[in-house]
Amino acid sequence: MPKLDLDAIPQVNTTGYPPEYAGVVKDRWYRRLAPASGISDFGFTHATLKPGAWSAQRHWHEGEDEFVVMLSGEAVLVEDGGETLLRPGDIAVFPKGVANGHVLQNRGDADCVFIAVGRPAASDCHYPDIDMHLFDGTGFRRKDGSGF
Amino acid sequence: MPKLDLDAIPQVNTTGYPPEYAGVVKDRWYRRLAPASGISDFGFTHATLKPGAWSAQRHWHEGEDEFVVMLSGEAVLVEDGGETLLRPGDIAVFPKGVANGHVLQNRGDADCVFIAVGRPAASDCHYPDIDMHLFDGTGFRRKDGSGF
Repeated sequence: MPKLDLDAIPQVNTTGYPPEYAGVVKDRWYRRLAPASGISDFGFTHATLKPGAWSAQRHWHEGEDEFVVMLSGEAVLVEDGGETLLRPGDIAVFPKGVANGHVLQNRGDADCVFIAVGRPAASDCHYPDIDMHLFDGTGFRRKDGSGF
Repeated sequence: MPKLDLDAIPQVNTTGYPPEYAGVVKDRWYRRLAPASGISDFGFTHATLKPGAWSAQRHWHEGEDEFVVMLSGEAVLVEDGGETLLRPGDIAVFPKGVANGHVLQNRGDADCVFIAVGRPAASDCHYPDIDMHLFDGTGFRRKDGSGF
């Protein structure tokens, strides 16, 4: 099965975000491809953003490199430095430890599909725009460490 | 520079294969994107196969997972089990240690473009169709260990 049958892999829209921050990803549908295909060196995800959906809350990882490859539709990449339109074939890379949060937003009328690659988050993840932080080993909490 | 400017990244067609096995990859042009973008958790390559070119000699890695994402054109994936046509948006995955050699061949008239992801080869790599083997730490040699 080296060629993946994407239709046979369950597509979910679940999130670990607390309800107050989960709205932007409710129309983010994704398939986790590493467990479905038997690889473990890294994770990779096939993601579809319906119109209006975001890839995540804007964030950056202390300890995990990430990159995305655009397959169809368009997405706006939002970072500290501004906004960049991503089209099919475009690639964006987010080196670990670079304190510049990133998010892909689908502001168009068509689905946006992309592949995201990265190791599972095992370090702190920072969310510059909201009162949330991913603490290594303890999950999502407010920035002062209190729970939701 | 999270969105990569692919045109600014050098494209090469070099190979470490000995001359007798290098012909099939002479029209394989690629950009190594990890060093160009500052990530190190894994390697990834933007590859263009001109008509007639192959991605590699058919091979499988003992210790490194790999996957490819098709961006444009078509390629024929050749494995022990037969041949599979890959089109834009298709994904093929090659878990480490699975003794089934794989190669992408461009048999069409248009360029084929894909992204390949994997860690740098640090284990033995097997080439079932030719008298070549990648020995961990010593490079390409004949299967009996002799040099080219």
